[in-house]
Amino acid sequence: MTNLSIAILGGTGNEGSGLALRWARAGHRIIIGSRVAERAAQTAAELNAQLGLEAVCGLDNLSAAQEGDLVVLTVPAEAQRPTLESVRAVLSGKILVDATARVAAKDPRPPQSPAAARTAQDLLGPAVRVVAAFQNVPAFSLKKLDVELASDVLVCGDDADAKQQVIQLAAAAGMQAYDAGGLDNAVVVEGLTALIISLNKKYKSRTGGIRVSGISR
Amino acid sequence: MTNLSIAILGGTGNEGSGLALRWARAGHRIIIGSRVAERAAQTAAELNAQLGLEAVCGLDNLSAAQEGDLVVLTVPAEAQRPTLESVRAVLSGKILVDATARVAAKDPRPPQSPAAARTAQDLLGPAVRVVAAFQNVPAFSLKKLDVELASDVLVCGDDADAKQQVIQLAAAAGMQAYDAGGLDNAVVVEGLTALIISLNKKYKSRTGGIRVSGISR
Repeated sequence: MTNLSIAILGGTGNEGSGLALRWARAGHRIIIGSRVAERAAQTAAELNAQLGLEAVCGLDNLSAAQEGDLVVLTVPAEAQRPTLESVRAVLSGKILVDATARVAAKDPRPPQSPAAARTAQDLLGPAVRVVAAFQNVPAFSLKKLDVELASDVLVCGDDADAKQQVIQLAAAAGMQAYDAGGLDNAVVVEGLTALIISLNKKYKSRTGGIRVSGISR
Repeated sequence: MTNLSIAILGGTGNEGSGLALRWARAGHRIIIGSRVAERAAQTAAELNAQLGLEAVCGLDNLSAAQEGDLVVLTVPAEAQRPTLESVRAVLSGKILVDATARVAAKDPRPPQSPAAARTAQDLLGPAVRVVAAFQNVPAFSLKKLDVELASDVLVCGDDADAKQQVIQLAAAAGMQAYDAGGLDNAVVVEGLTALIISLNKKYKSRTGGIRVSGISR
């Protein structure tokens, strides 16, 4: 896979910065996006220090989205729409990877259709290819670069080529990913977040996840 | 686990008869239920012949539900409500294990809340403990008794003791099962059926499934 410039909007959070670390280590250039450019730059500096590289920079969300060949959205659910509205002007022709899961950690319930990623696709229109992925990557493990991730990535989208690129990105971050069908299937992957929170609570774990079985790729 | 009399309504289908085989082999007594008693008896005879045991009998759904210590529902989605209405009078005090997944094989889409099992609980009232499980067990593998099942069972319900009994039943059939939270989470497990159908189609498999990872029980 060619090295990409990957913008991670909301990249100051645990999940975004965990993905940033893993992709930077794999040779990609990372642009952390945040509402506040200084916070993004601060996170970028911390990640570069952890990696011993200069592979990560930080910008405001709009500038980050503009710079990225591919844009990843890892903001809290309530920030999904305003963030996308603030960057939609520069997303045309790009892939948007939407990691939004509308599940509250303290009161985990399965969300209703349409999937968050379908809402993103409707908002952004056909010039942007939305792919849903990474909604339930365990952030706790993601930042520990020496830990093997015990979770597969279910990739949903309506564009086969875009999904294939995201499957390769997941592999670059150390995760097995599978093409799990159309964008509307993403509501199930969001809901898995509620199940995983329930499992972690019941079995006193922080690393619960889901793997695909019985399939050879 | 004490040996139980397990009624399997819709037990003439692939999933029900696969579960029947595995539970009978584990020492449970099985009552196959069907709308037509003769069809149930025919399936029971076939299963006994395959097992070399006399552990399975066949009755109409109402008689089967009456005989069973625990009742499992493995009918097609459109038959869920009429079947439950036909047997509700004899379910009081029992556990009903609902395996209904409202997903069509030819057009797999995630179903909406409420979960099929929640609808069952609302229909049956509080005297019956409904547990959702086995919605996406691969029927193809279930009937091959020498095949290890590459799929875990996500058990959802509002009664912890009833869930625990179903987790033990899954183990008796050779599957790992996990307490995956309340009954409303079952809509996600139903939706996983749509994802698994998509995965099987994409990767040309008949044995796709989901496993829980990163949790020790």
